[in-house]
Amino acid sequence: MIAREVEFEGHLIDSNILPRVLDLILDLDGEFEITEFRIGKRKHDKSYARMIVFGRDEEHLGEILKELHKLGARIPDAENAEVAEAPNDMVLPDGFYVTTNNPTFVRINGEWVEVEDIGMDRVIVVDPERKKAYCKFLNEIKRGDLVVVGEKGVKVIPPERPRKSSTFEFMGGHVSSERPTSNVVKAIASEIVELKKNGGRIAVVAGPAVDHTGARDALAGMIRDGYVDVLLSGNALAVHDIELALFGTSLGMDVRTGRPVPGGNRHHIHTISRVIAAGGIKKAVESGLVGEGIMFECIKNNVPFVLAGSIRDDGPLPEVITDVMKAKKEMKKALKGINMVIMLASMLHSIAVGNLLPSTVKTICVDSNPATVTKLVDRGSHQAIGIVTDVGLFLPELYKSIKEIEMDSA
Amino acid sequence: MIAREVEFEGHLIDSNILPRVLDLILDLDGEFEITEFRIGKRKHDKSYARMIVFGRDEEHLGEILKELHKLGARIPDAENAEVAEAPNDMVLPDGFYVTTNNPTFVRINGEWVEVEDIGMDRVIVVDPERKKAYCKFLNEIKRGDLVVVGEKGVKVIPPERPRKSSTFEFMGGHVSSERPTSNVVKAIASEIVELKKNGGRIAVVAGPAVDHTGARDALAGMIRDGYVDVLLSGNALAVHDIELALFGTSLGMDVRTGRPVPGGNRHHIHTISRVIAAGGIKKAVESGLVGEGIMFECIKNNVPFVLAGSIRDDGPLPEVITDVMKAKKEMKKALKGINMVIMLASMLHSIAVGNLLPSTVKTICVDSNPATVTKLVDRGSHQAIGIVTDVGLFLPELYKSIKEIEMDSA
Amino acid sequence: MIAREVEFEGHLIDSNILPRVLDLILDLDGEFEITEFRIGKRKHDKSYARMIVFGRDEEHLGEILKELHKLGARIPDAENAEVAEAPNDMVLPDGFYVTTNNPTFVRINGEWVEVEDIGMDRVIVVDPERKKAYCKFLNEIKRGDLVVVGEKGVKVIPPERPRKSSTFEFMGGHVSSERPTSNVVKAIASEIVELKKNGGRIAVVAGPAVDHTGARDALAGMIRDGYVDVLLSGNALAVHDIELALFGTSLGMDVRTGRPVPGGNRHHIHTISRVIAAGGIKKAVESGLVGEGIMFECIKNNVPFVLAGSIRDDGPLPEVITDVMKAKKEMKKALKGINMVIMLASMLHSIAVGNLLPSTVKTICVDSNPATVTKLVDRGSHQAIGIVTDVGLFLPELYKSIKEIEMDSA
Amino acid sequence: MIAREVEFEGHLIDSNILPRVLDLILDLDGEFEITEFRIGKRKHDKSYARMIVFGRDEEHLGEILKELHKLGARIPDAENAEVAEAPNDMVLPDGFYVTTNNPTFVRINGEWVEVEDIGMDRVIVVDPERKKAYCKFLNEIKRGDLVVVGEKGVKVIPPERPRKSSTFEFMGGHVSSERPTSNVVKAIASEIVELKKNGGRIAVVAGPAVDHTGARDALAGMIRDGYVDVLLSGNALAVHDIELALFGTSLGMDVRTGRPVPGGNRHHIHTISRVIAAGGIKKAVESGLVGEGIMFECIKNNVPFVLAGSIRDDGPLPEVITDVMKAKKEMKKALKGINMVIMLASMLHSIAVGNLLPSTVKTICVDSNPATVTKLVDRGSHQAIGIVTDVGLFLPELYKSIKEIEMDSA
Repeated sequence: MIAREVEFEGHLIDSNILPRVLDLILDLDGEFEITEFRIGKRKHDKSYARMIVFGRDEEHLGEILKELHKLGARIPDAENAEVAEAPNDMVLPDGFYVTTNNPTFVRINGEWVEVEDIGMDRVIVVDPERKKAYCKFLNEIKRGDLVVVGEKGVKVIPPERPRKSSTFEFMGGHVSSERPTSNVVKAIASEIVELKKNGGRIAVVAGPAVDHTGARDALAGMIRDGYVDVLLSGNALAVHDIELALFGTSLGMDVRTGRPVPGGNRHHIHTISRVIAAGGIKKAVESGLVGEGIMFECIKNNVPFVLAGSIRDDGPLPEVITDVMKAKKEMKKALKGINMVIMLASMLHSIAVGNLLPSTVKTICVDSNPATVTKLVDRGSHQAIGIVTDVGLFLPELYKSIKEIEMDSA
Repeated sequence: MIAREVEFEGHLIDSNILPRVLDLILDLDGEFEITEFRIGKRKHDKSYARMIVFGRDEEHLGEILKELHKLGARIPDAENAEVAEAPNDMVLPDGFYVTTNNPTFVRINGEWVEVEDIGMDRVIVVDPERKKAYCKFLNEIKRGDLVVVGEKGVKVIPPERPRKSSTFEFMGGHVSSERPTSNVVKAIASEIVELKKNGGRIAVVAGPAVDHTGARDALAGMIRDGYVDVLLSGNALAVHDIELALFGTSLGMDVRTGRPVPGGNRHHIHTISRVIAAGGIKKAVESGLVGEGIMFECIKNNVPFVLAGSIRDDGPLPEVITDVMKAKKEMKKALKGINMVIMLASMLHSIAVGNLLPSTVKTICVDSNPATVTKLVDRGSHQAIGIVTDVGLFLPELYKSIKEIEMDSA
Repeated sequence: MIAREVEFEGHLIDSNILPRVLDLILDLDGEFEITEFRIGKRKHDKSYARMIVFGRDEEHLGEILKELHKLGARIPDAENAEVAEAPNDMVLPDGFYVTTNNPTFVRINGEWVEVEDIGMDRVIVVDPERKKAYCKFLNEIKRGDLVVVGEKGVKVIPPERPRKSSTFEFMGGHVSSERPTSNVVKAIASEIVELKKNGGRIAVVAGPAVDHTGARDALAGMIRDGYVDVLLSGNALAVHDIELALFGTSLGMDVRTGRPVPGGNRHHIHTISRVIAAGGIKKAVESGLVGEGIMFECIKNNVPFVLAGSIRDDGPLPEVITDVMKAKKEMKKALKGINMVIMLASMLHSIAVGNLLPSTVKTICVDSNPATVTKLVDRGSHQAIGIVTDVGLFLPELYKSIKEIEMDSA
Repeated sequence: MIAREVEFEGHLIDSNILPRVLDLILDLDGEFEITEFRIGKRKHDKSYARMIVFGRDEEHLGEILKELHKLGARIPDAENAEVAEAPNDMVLPDGFYVTTNNPTFVRINGEWVEVEDIGMDRVIVVDPERKKAYCKFLNEIKRGDLVVVGEKGVKVIPPERPRKSSTFEFMGGHVSSERPTSNVVKAIASEIVELKKNGGRIAVVAGPAVDHTGARDALAGMIRDGYVDVLLSGNALAVHDIELALFGTSLGMDVRTGRPVPGGNRHHIHTISRVIAAGGIKKAVESGLVGEGIMFECIKNNVPFVLAGSIRDDGPLPEVITDVMKAKKEMKKALKGINMVIMLASMLHSIAVGNLLPSTVKTICVDSNPATVTKLVDRGSHQAIGIVTDVGLFLPELYKSIKEIEMDSA
């Protein structure tokens, strides 16, 4: 048996860190001996734990420490992070360190430097000269990049579970169904208004069901009123939004009656053809061809949008980025400085966006499929809440609640 | 090969009957020869078909004719129905005829008599003296009852597909998701108001999610305003409705915040105990213990209700019928003369009610689980529509739409 | 502010109890001061915590303590439990104590007595003379019963999270989908064989999908081979099982081809009528009418079964208990001494059974609907595992794995 | 009112065409008068109908005829198709004809020419010199292409409903759940073996759940044994398949135990990095780095594969086509001459592939989510069957059934 000493500091009990640490050691067939434990005696006090972890051999102990590391384990006397050169573009050195989506620091020349753009399942590249550390996707790695290897000199701050003082916080980390939906909607509306009042930034990820279910005018309203700072979506949302502006149908269905219109299956292709003829969405709005809707409000209010292509797409519209790696890069850029993401009936895009976000961004996920909501919420973040409901009733109700709060406070 | 001649009359083409007839014959390895066919030339014209059906032998041909019978096949020269005595209580004679949920006539002494209380998967008992025919469950059969055997002298009128002139009719037989929900709600509201204006009667089947999701006040309002003629449910809906009246919680959750209340898991047991102490729901309302809600409105407005027991029940409340066969009988009685049924987030009760209804009753089924909605709608009726949505947003929206229509027409 | 001292003992950290204690206090707006904390230094060491809990007033503090109580909080110097007489049949005294599904002790005349038949959401009746305490449903309460009130002198042992040494334990408390299904099946098979080898007792709860999906022969085999000690189900499972024996169809569908058989919708009514004529299931087996299947194996191998009625039932069969409260009582009796429950595609019965079980019984829940599985597993027990899969493929595979393990060990 | 005469020929009754024609006319507020109707008197006889359709005005009648056209309506005296030049790349002339996924013919210089590569929601480009007609996506349109406008001179052959002689045909157009799963699997296995024996070609669309659920070895086996002619998938399936070859894990989970492996979340990134270092999948197989699995069998057996990129992708692997429009084109090419498609737990790719297929290709769709299966099957084709089940149990069972059939016939 070999051993190593590690320490933990923070809200070890009420953020459920210490239990997971001990669990993990035992599940991996390790042993522990707690050498020091100071519990925070009151609400805001931090706790501190120091323990010796035992493994069968160096490899086994290393595996345990790798996992403990994600929970914030630190070697008491910190050393600098180790790095190795990437042998080629998109090729990683052995033993590369893989990131979590929690705030992370690397020790460079004796100083703790925060890793920029942190996100799940990437690697860390350091620039020792400028004392900088970046979180990079595999396809961003260039030959010669200095990639962090091993856990030494890397420190992760696991998320603290927020006090459940508001309904919003109470729902954190959970999927809600069989709840009083309209009151849940009100709580979310408050959270949004509050966040915007404090200068926060909101991204919306939306799927084409927003058009089909009649939630589109509410989303257009939220954009017009300044509640959306960036829109992330795909070709379909934009096509059917503009189809609604041009033909009053969404995928050929009249949204006032819910009935297909004769010849309606031509509408979305016609829509794409006309936008292409106009020179793109922006020009179609500027020329007056498109006079209302989600894309119209984005253009008119300078709200940036990223439309990522998929193999299902018809057309696509000129603004759609058909190279997925380029689209992902644009999405990552657009999400910089975002404090909240609202995911509306869009599995593919929501998962992609979820992978790009640090655990500290508030996430609201709305979908009628419980499995989709669970998948999106279940990413280890206390900041994600899920609501299993119909976006066609949810979004208009949300927008109405936001307007009511605005009025009440005016 | 042996053969028999059968005839069909009605909207054979546009109600999709003839295609199903030919399908069936061929699927069952039979043959046919159409000897006469007069197609309805215009909208309201009926069609007529006469054909010879061939089978391998008497048994095979019998099997084919049994199935054709359900689609309205008649033997050209009708004979009287054959009957046999039930050998014992709840025991059927060989060859008993099993019913569909479509209007059905039996020929007694040369006259076509409509079967009363028609419903799926039951048998027909005739009273030749009084020229009456009744549709009975197996457990209603008494020794000596004259049970119809074979298909001779029995005539089924398969449902005509209604013209899709309203949104409501358009949705008939379909499950709706990814539709403009709030417009669908408006169409249903119109249909309800119209039906009540014409003296129609509406039954509501509701599960406890109506309480949990905050839809309860809307249902109470609909009862108060006369839109509900009978309520069919179970113990849980009533318990949590009264729990809301007494404690403001539903299964211990505060419906204003969606959060569990400390000690809240005692509330539903406390509720049941107090209602039992008061002598039942009716007395609890009359004594002032219960001052609002679904059950309160039922009592105050003399809207009858049937609460059927289940093995999940706590308590139960005194008005709950714990014998399921007795409960089923009461439900059947309560559904007499009903023209529309609204099923709200209640699988068990909705399926039970669905089994009790003839195909001519309009059915609206709302549930967040697509599989439940599909199961309920998929009963061969053009009169059933399904909406996959959240009852917590749906029902308040429906009630609001009803009130708006009322105002507009006032 | 007022305060009270409480203590906790056990695996406070690794069974996640202390975090939930502190969470709860803060979520309820209370405060705490930890006065003593001894952490278990190694694997098998227990921890001990003593803390002062603060509330705004007596009522507030009482609410907090009620909730802490469920997590095992004890007043350091224990007093006897307080009791009050039930004022009437099925009516509880004020302040009645409501149970959890965890092992519970009450202090009677200075001694800790374990509560018999513990289960969720019931009350405790004590017999001081015989030093006994019973967990009772509301409808079992008789006027004059001594019902425990308040938390004083009541001690709950919250469940310890088992070490994840086997695949089975690893899955504890989780719902599995996107897992290597056939290996998960093997792990469950091992657990079952092991449990039976050690004299454990297994209950199976099964819905009619077991018949429809072709899993019925596997269940019959498990009964024949002694892996099922009691079967809990409803009318439908038994009807279609016997329909398969008599006609080879399940609800009129030929299970070899998956196709409906002409005239097949008569089969289940015919089946019920014939079993009634025979005098019940038992006599139908003994007379040779029914020669194979689930019910046949139960009768032949003296495996007791409880068939509980529901309002959906046709017939029902004579052995079906149509009074749900009586059925529930029989189910509770049948579950005495059971160590494992396997729930197969049966939501209503599974929830009812889940409510009757203490947290210490191992539960395996199999259903194709993720929402059902989540609902069943999510009852605070580490002993419940859920698998989202098709029972028609799962059960034959399980039976095959069991037979392979038997052979290997033979 | 204005009128036009149209005619229909084929299995108008038993393929349900005439009912839909009359429905459609009336639903669109038109009128009809049937002037001639000859019904097919026996099994293989075609029917013929001639009718006058009335509309309010030219536009209204045009709308009706557009929809009738999709059901095979022909103008009795056929004229040549009309064409117009595409005004620009990806821009369509007014009145462009939009395709169905049914076999379609255009009349060029008095001759009926079949449209090549027919598929849903595209346009037809004709080459009058070479008497050719091509079905094209919008993004394949070049300025000056001769695009068909209007319905004149275009003939659609609506699908005939196959006789339900096999279990496979019986299930056509339906989603199966609560069916005897293992017998359904056997029926599909027979169909596959039969199709291959007759020289048919099979495409498989597979999602990463095939790796996670342990179905991967079965798919690899089917490729090795020649049952797969082309594989359509994305980055994830290939990454986790190779991760299994290199590390024995799928997304870090040990597939023998279903448990995550310490450090396992690095495996998929490590896998990608190593394949990139090797120069791609093909070279990784040839160099011996990858020695078994799905991709290995594809390479070794020269089975072509198309891996289409998505915004969720890590890496991606070098063979992944990151431009979605290019990927779609490759998929379309790969599907040429395919007779059957098996879709395995892959919504995005399955929908994309579904859009590329004519209605005549047999489609088997397997997913655990009923909504996904319904969406994929519900495309108007009698050739699509859906099975709601767990791919982890389904695919091994399918492969086993195929091997058994092989042996039996050997």
